[in-house]
Amino acid sequence: MSGLLQVQLTGASPRRARVALAGCGVVGGALIRLLRERRASVEREQGVQFEMVGVLVRDLRRPRMVESAAGVVTNDLRAWLSQDADVVVEATGARDTALQIARATLTRGRRFITANKALIAAHGPELAALARASGGRLHFEAAVGGGVPMIRVLREALRHTGVRSVRGVLNGTTNYVLTRMAEGEPLAEALQGARLRGFAEADASRDLDGRDAADKIAILAWLAFGIDPAAVQVQRRELGPRADALVATARAHGGVLRQIAECSLTEGGVITAVEPVIVAATSPFAQAVGEENCVCIETRRNGTTRLFGPGAGGPPTAAALLSDLLAPDSVEPGPRPSPPASRPDERLHTWAISTASGGVAPVFAALDSNGLAVQWARTDPAARVHALTAPADRGRVTACLRELEHAGTGPVAVRTEVG
Amino acid sequence: MSGLLQVQLTGASPRRARVALAGCGVVGGALIRLLRERRASVEREQGVQFEMVGVLVRDLRRPRMVESAAGVVTNDLRAWLSQDADVVVEATGARDTALQIARATLTRGRRFITANKALIAAHGPELAALARASGGRLHFEAAVGGGVPMIRVLREALRHTGVRSVRGVLNGTTNYVLTRMAEGEPLAEALQGARLRGFAEADASRDLDGRDAADKIAILAWLAFGIDPAAVQVQRRELGPRADALVATARAHGGVLRQIAECSLTEGGVITAVEPVIVAATSPFAQAVGEENCVCIETRRNGTTRLFGPGAGGPPTAAALLSDLLAPDSVEPGPRPSPPASRPDERLHTWAISTASGGVAPVFAALDSNGLAVQWARTDPAARVHALTAPADRGRVTACLRELEHAGTGPVAVRTEVG
Repeated sequence: MSGLLQVQLTGASPRRARVALAGCGVVGGALIRLLRERRASVEREQGVQFEMVGVLVRDLRRPRMVESAAGVVTNDLRAWLSQDADVVVEATGARDTALQIARATLTRGRRFITANKALIAAHGPELAALARASGGRLHFEAAVGGGVPMIRVLREALRHTGVRSVRGVLNGTTNYVLTRMAEGEPLAEALQGARLRGFAEADASRDLDGRDAADKIAILAWLAFGIDPAAVQVQRRELGPRADALVATARAHGGVLRQIAECSLTEGGVITAVEPVIVAATSPFAQAVGEENCVCIETRRNGTTRLFGPGAGGPPTAAALLSDLLAPDSVEPGPRPSPPASRPDERLHTWAISTASGGVAPVFAALDSNGLAVQWARTDPAARVHALTAPADRGRVTACLRELEHAGTGPVAVRTEVG
Repeated sequence: MSGLLQVQLTGASPRRARVALAGCGVVGGALIRLLRERRASVEREQGVQFEMVGVLVRDLRRPRMVESAAGVVTNDLRAWLSQDADVVVEATGARDTALQIARATLTRGRRFITANKALIAAHGPELAALARASGGRLHFEAAVGGGVPMIRVLREALRHTGVRSVRGVLNGTTNYVLTRMAEGEPLAEALQGARLRGFAEADASRDLDGRDAADKIAILAWLAFGIDPAAVQVQRRELGPRADALVATARAHGGVLRQIAECSLTEGGVITAVEPVIVAATSPFAQAVGEENCVCIETRRNGTTRLFGPGAGGPPTAAALLSDLLAPDSVEPGPRPSPPASRPDERLHTWAISTASGGVAPVFAALDSNGLAVQWARTDPAARVHALTAPADRGRVTACLRELEHAGTGPVAVRTEVG
């Protein structure tokens, strides 16, 4: 047990905590700056003095915005680990090194804090068990939701409220892009804007195709329902190359396009999905704009709690890491003995189906041959066809889409919750 | 130090924690039921077994919905306190008894958990100091925001983000009433509905005149800025007997009426206010509907975080109490050495001024004689006058209102953020 914060403040001198940081990019650099800025108040209010004993980087020659850390910077993993710090903060983004660091830290009963969603989605339960066994601590507020404290709220505040579903906007880059596109910018331009603002990587494919949000919703499903995040089958639909057409379809349906991540408890098990959905402009999801994230947690005993805030960027993520650094020394909760199973989404949804060309005939033919009933269909001035199906399962829609694609109509299909 | 949760789970039998509860009304009763329902999972996941050793009530003869607690029910405060429980949960609503219980519990270094906003608003810093000195714990998540975990988020997640302002809808009863009134119900009827649903007391005057929300915003100002909540001067404007006219005025301005509680850091100190405000239908505050609460926390380093959820009722409050029962054993943070001062709101706001009768002439006369410039004014079909002022301070508006009142025009004035 690290006992980091177990110190009486009255009249006592602050307790020193030796911190080792892995990664000194946008997030790691922001954390170093934040720790420096808040040094005096952290010490005064919380009686702890953080001392940065080592910063692990990949490339020693790369210029750092944080100069004063230079003395403790190293690229030698073994030497860095051997410092035996009280707390290890991992902000590398690299999964294999992160796992090695996590295991080494938790095995020694130390506190391990990470911003690494892929690590927790793949190894969360293993690391939690390691923490329980050794008296170490595992924290990952910064791995999901950026500066929105969804981990803490789900894990602590709403733990015993009987969570039924967690739905949210969990990828700030995609939400920024969708917000800009709704204002008329094409995908490429919106993506460039996100890069200039520093919250999109050069390769944003993991953001747009939902893999990033899939890791995050798997983690939330673990916390909400106890299921192993590595075993969660996330139903994923990418925003894809026809993103502009999807945004136009949302507009044609009087709604707004959002990438929605969801895990819901149903009778047959937990359904987990990440996909573009047309939501009403008045829906909570539409209220998350730009790089914001949001989450709606529906419970049996506590109604629905909704959280919104900054979902991307160095400073919010660093603030989440600091809140974990200062988190009380709780015991890692035990696993649930018989969590529900993960199962595919066989619920019926309504779908907006639109084509770029080809007229009405092929659309009705494809809908009909796949047993999809239509609520309405119309042609817009640009001769695109827009149709709204009656509630239908994913399989029929996928087959219909394939048929329309084959007919060369440039189709898109997207779940819709409008109307 | 109670060390309640400081127990290794692996292979260990659960630690017993003796709980004494004061108050067995809506909230206390809901907590007893929740503890019973979640007994097994709390024990399994968190390694703690709560045992209810005493329930303090005022009237022993009053029938309780919670029968099984009967064996430990008492109305003898001294005997109840002498049990020396590990945790004391206070849900009486009575301030003097609550203070006595809090002091006795914290002096012994035990954990004290309360839903009592008046207690914390009046004695929070004293009780926190007592907890620090004795190694006791003070928790009050249930005192503000019902089931919305604003205390935890402000105290832990956003502690070092540089809070600039906290604004919110903090009274579920008033928000329920305002939501119903916006749909056309008169005040009396809406209030009756709130009573039938069990979240308004027979006397709702503390809700409607802002005193309830004033206690809550004083607590949030303490957490956000370190100022003594008892010394906070909350600028308060009641919803009052002209509530129907205020709602109609909001409609005439294309907005929605909300009771907004606010504390904002300005150069001269912290401004704290509770008052009706006309907000845009698209504003976050308008998204809190019915008995919901919400809070928007604007920070320097972490953008704006917004939380929404159930603000009133037994089950959400009980869930908040349980989250405090299970909260890790943190050290009570120390006070800030030089918190900002509390100061009156001298900022300029725009004001909607409406009259019930008397025509345009007295309105313009009163505005003019008090130096209030007008952005626009118009008369509606029912001959009511609606005017929007240029930014102006409260003093001028109050004087103008008094003049219009004197002229017998039945005026209302309300801050507006629309347009």
